[in-house]
Amino acid sequence: MIVRDFDKIVKGERDRVVADAKWTSVRMLLANDGMGFSFHITVLEAGSEHTFHYKNHFESVYCMQGKGSITDLKTGETHEIKPGVMYALNEHDKHTLRAEEELWMACCFNPPVTGTEVHREDGSYAAPDEVS
Amino acid sequence: MIVRDFDKIVKGERDRVVADAKWTSVRMLLANDGMGFSFHITVLEAGSEHTFHYKNHFESVYCMQGKGSITDLKTGETHEIKPGVMYALNEHDKHTLRAEEELWMACCFNPPVTGTEVHREDGSYAAPDEVS
Repeated sequence: MIVRDFDKIVKGERDRVVADAKWTSVRMLLANDGMGFSFHITVLEAGSEHTFHYKNHFESVYCMQGKGSITDLKTGETHEIKPGVMYALNEHDKHTLRAEEELWMACCFNPPVTGTEVHREDGSYAAPDEVS
Repeated sequence: MIVRDFDKIVKGERDRVVADAKWTSVRMLLANDGMGFSFHITVLEAGSEHTFHYKNHFESVYCMQGKGSITDLKTGETHEIKPGVMYALNEHDKHTLRAEEELWMACCFNPPVTGTEVHREDGSYAAPDEVS
């Protein structure tokens, strides 16, 4: 059994924390945990906007706290994000996420993220076999 | 893109809600969503105790709200459960979960749950190929 505490990771296991200018992601589970998915708690700064396109991953994102919106860039449709709303990128959907208030999200990735990925210019993460 | 709202599911899509005497699980994603994992929001009643043994699944469980503990029945070790703590059953660990306060948990299963499983007497869910 693996037991991990968000607060302890933030204070003491900085290799599990990935941050960009306006978001921070705490990797509670990564590929090497052997679960077949990775699980991240991601916090997006109030007022920030993010365009991502996970060409190589499926991702589900559950809003635990905060307020915002997501736009599907293929259909142009926008959905409200609030506690209890989940979106799942089952078609590797390119999207823009906006945080009106600070957003706290619980995210699952399949295949699991290894922890070494960076967002590329096209908003994607590399596929597992492209990761060094 | 799939977008689902916990509150709307609870009110209107009762086939996605599974409940036992002392817990309720809302299936935000199931096997037929094609993500390769399922994602559930599970609420455990204050004062309740649950012994589960997912022999055929890996499960991660992140505490969003509440207070309790988990005991690994192989090692006898007990861990505190509070917001920000995650446990992952990476060895199909038989365990007892206790809710001192009502627990709100975000759960991922691999392989994904189909939605038709019931907890068997041994605390497990059937494997995907055993589910009718």
